Amino acid sequence: MIDARVASGLRDIPPAAMIARERTLAAFRKTFADFGFVPIETPHIERMEVLTGKGAGSDEVLRQIYEVINKGGEPGKLALRFDLTVPLARFVSKNINELGRPFKRYAIGSVFRGERPAKGRFREFVQCDFDTVGTESFVADAETAQVIHAALAAIGVPAFTIRLNNRKILDAMLDSLGLAEQGGAILRSLDKIAKIGRDGVDRELQGGSADPDSPGPGLSSDQAHRILDFAEAGRGGPEVLDRAEETIGSSPKAAEGIANLRSILGLLEAAGVPRERVQIDLGLARGLDYYTGIVFETTVDGFEKFGSVASGGRYDDLTRLFTDQPLPGVGASIGLDRLLAVLEESGWGKGPSTTVPVLFPNFPGADPRHAVRLAARLRAAGIGAEVYPDPIQAGKQLQYGSTRGHRLAVIVGPAEQEAETFNLRDLKTREERKGLPWDALVDEVARALGREEAGAAR
Amino acid sequence: MIDARVASGLRDIPPAAMIARERTLAAFRKTFADFGFVPIETPHIERMEVLTGKGAGSDEVLRQIYEVINKGGEPGKLALRFDLTVPLARFVSKNINELGRPFKRYAIGSVFRGERPAKGRFREFVQCDFDTVGTESFVADAETAQVIHAALAAIGVPAFTIRLNNRKILDAMLDSLGLAEQGGAILRSLDKIAKIGRDGVDRELQGGSADPDSPGPGLSSDQAHRILDFAEAGRGGPEVLDRAEETIGSSPKAAEGIANLRSILGLLEAAGVPRERVQIDLGLARGLDYYTGIVFETTVDGFEKFGSVASGGRYDDLTRLFTDQPLPGVGASIGLDRLLAVLEESGWGKGPSTTVPVLFPNFPGADPRHAVRLAARLRAAGIGAEVYPDPIQAGKQLQYGSTRGHRLAVIVGPAEQEAETFNLRDLKTREERKGLPWDALVDEVARALGREEAGAAR
Repeated sequence: MIDARVASGLRDIPPAAMIARERTLAAFRKTFADFGFVPIETPHIERMEVLTGKGAGSDEVLRQIYEVINKGGEPGKLALRFDLTVPLARFVSKNINELGRPFKRYAIGSVFRGERPAKGRFREFVQCDFDTVGTESFVADAETAQVIHAALAAIGVPAFTIRLNNRKILDAMLDSLGLAEQGGAILRSLDKIAKIGRDGVDRELQGGSADPDSPGPGLSSDQAHRILDFAEAGRGGPEVLDRAEETIGSSPKAAEGIANLRSILGLLEAAGVPRERVQIDLGLARGLDYYTGIVFETTVDGFEKFGSVASGGRYDDLTRLFTDQPLPGVGASIGLDRLLAVLEESGWGKGPSTTVPVLFPNFPGADPRHAVRLAARLRAAGIGAEVYPDPIQAGKQLQYGSTRGHRLAVIVGPAEQEAETFNLRDLKTREERKGLPWDALVDEVARALGREEAGAAR
Repeated sequence: MIDARVASGLRDIPPAAMIARERTLAAFRKTFADFGFVPIETPHIERMEVLTGKGAGSDEVLRQIYEVINKGGEPGKLALRFDLTVPLARFVSKNINELGRPFKRYAIGSVFRGERPAKGRFREFVQCDFDTVGTESFVADAETAQVIHAALAAIGVPAFTIRLNNRKILDAMLDSLGLAEQGGAILRSLDKIAKIGRDGVDRELQGGSADPDSPGPGLSSDQAHRILDFAEAGRGGPEVLDRAEETIGSSPKAAEGIANLRSILGLLEAAGVPRERVQIDLGLARGLDYYTGIVFETTVDGFEKFGSVASGGRYDDLTRLFTDQPLPGVGASIGLDRLLAVLEESGWGKGPSTTVPVLFPNFPGADPRHAVRLAARLRAAGIGAEVYPDPIQAGKQLQYGSTRGHRLAVIVGPAEQEAETFNLRDLKTREERKGLPWDALVDEVARALGREEAGAAR
């Protein structure tokens, strides 16, 4: 006998979780499509050099790469993708002339990272990415935030906050302190404010990091405090931008970043995104070196500890590894697994472990052709229906329906078969209406389902 | 610079093909769900011993396995799945007590086989599987064929043939000739009738195979002809079963198989599956050793050379590798890539390379907030809309829309902005209606789209 377990750090997704997942993905696909993003798919396996090219991924990600070897093939040539951005860069570099600009694509798929397994952290997880490539327009910047809003609203997340910054503002701030050189290390520290607090970041900025690989930028206490004050005063609505203008507006770079954020806020308001869903956060850095303009993060209100569920930003040149042609773009990635973890913890994602509302028992002693015929009639009317395969004891079949979450059972026993009628049983209340004629099936079932929904909404 | 190509035998799926693909997958998911199949997902990476356990895959498939190595991990431990059936067996073995019976699941995902690359044959391809586990009922057998019918009908395949057999009938036939021992080799040869013709199979059955690995069963000329005659006379409607009953009906095994097929035909008729979609084919073997009852194959009429697009059957014990608990089941797999190749060749799958019908140019000199606001209004009414990001020359923006397949452009230039109106342009006919009020946007666009659809249907 072979042990039926999955490999370490991987998992199976059982039906109840998977039904919620598919509902979520369908809503995302529709949202992306409604804005004119088109789907593409790239292989799970890429050539190793595509994934490990300089700047493709952080050192940490590269350490976690899964190598793939085809029987008879050489090692070191192939690997599993660790994100959907590098494959996008490769795809766009190869095809931009046929694709035209702007190229707006979405992609949903598994990515693989050999991280140390931990609760809620898996080595295979799903990313939902959308990007607009080949434009520098702030209209595309604003649309990225608008799509995040639309996607989370579509799946019923009641309250969340999209935080926005423009990297140019932070860069100008560091320039004004003469700290451009240490920028990368400072931004990586700043990103940890939510995690390790102001004091922790303060210590790191002054060089006291616990991580020997990145000893910290070694700022003076005054420099560290000015940066932290700037970041902390930088959270809020449009008024934050007015204050920043007073402080560092004389820097053309900062002015450009501020103007960009103002335009974005204007478009988001025009698009009907509620004000309280959007927050300026001038301390938001998103450490990744390739961001050059707007950056986003999104947390679900009350579930901030789960971290950002949708993040992204603008990059000046996605494709520099593969082509000389500069291709600026902006995009974001929704972390499906993290988002579903929030939905599960909050209870918003609860649902039945069946995909159909109606069960037809295979009644002992009756001819199953009647159940099959009537079930087909319901499906043709747009109502999903399942026929139980074995003519076991009727009570057990009804039990199966209640357990899975079927709402109604349509019962055709030998007597009903004779009379060409059915009994309609509500599997929750156990009420049963008897002797309804076959011709009334679709109407009766639709009415019973409608009534139940109306009841649940009260 | 890094070469932007994909690895040998793999491919990118560009937007136009991917839009057709997603439409197809959405139809399949809905079909599976409407019959009460629930989704599950298992990792792309499995433990090697799960995939290579005796009977998990054919020798050929095992030769094609992709090994996976985590940095710092041992080689030989992990591999990419080559189908969705072995992962189902593993999943069900582990969870059957919580899942209950019957367990009806569907799964859609990539599988990996290092086959020699050839036109239209890829090393990563998508399978769409559905199975009913934990029942021996013919109701589940019939439903499997019914779901194949519903899935292909849902995506608009105009004519196709589901061929059915029950392995028990063929087995009984071979028993009657004293050929039970050579069964495997005979069945594998019989499967090639469409490919190499009667004469080719005849030669193979008599031992003259060109493949040194399987020298053929070495039958006498008389034995070979009796098998071939049986297979060839065995194609057609219910009358085929009457004839078979006369020949080998005295065998209890054959009688069981014949009764099973009759019940299935009865249920398919009750389900409203048209007669011409279903054909009995007593020579259909499906070489795989694990089938024990009904077997199916499905070809698209006029595109038989593409081979079967949906195949499956009943197996007595899916899970013998992992558990002592016997779990019979029945299921089928739809080959998405093969089916889409047929759709492409036939032209049935043609569609635009955009996901939205409406384009809003970002008109030079106008405030883009108006386009963003009006586009949001359309989306809220269920009509997808894309806003062009850059205020380039209007003609170029309209050209972008025509090329991608947007049907309408809503134009708000500086003059329209002033007057709070828009122009509605049909991107095919180039007709443009001017000066329509903003309040009429949803109605006008819906009407224009409806008119066009009505026109296209004529």
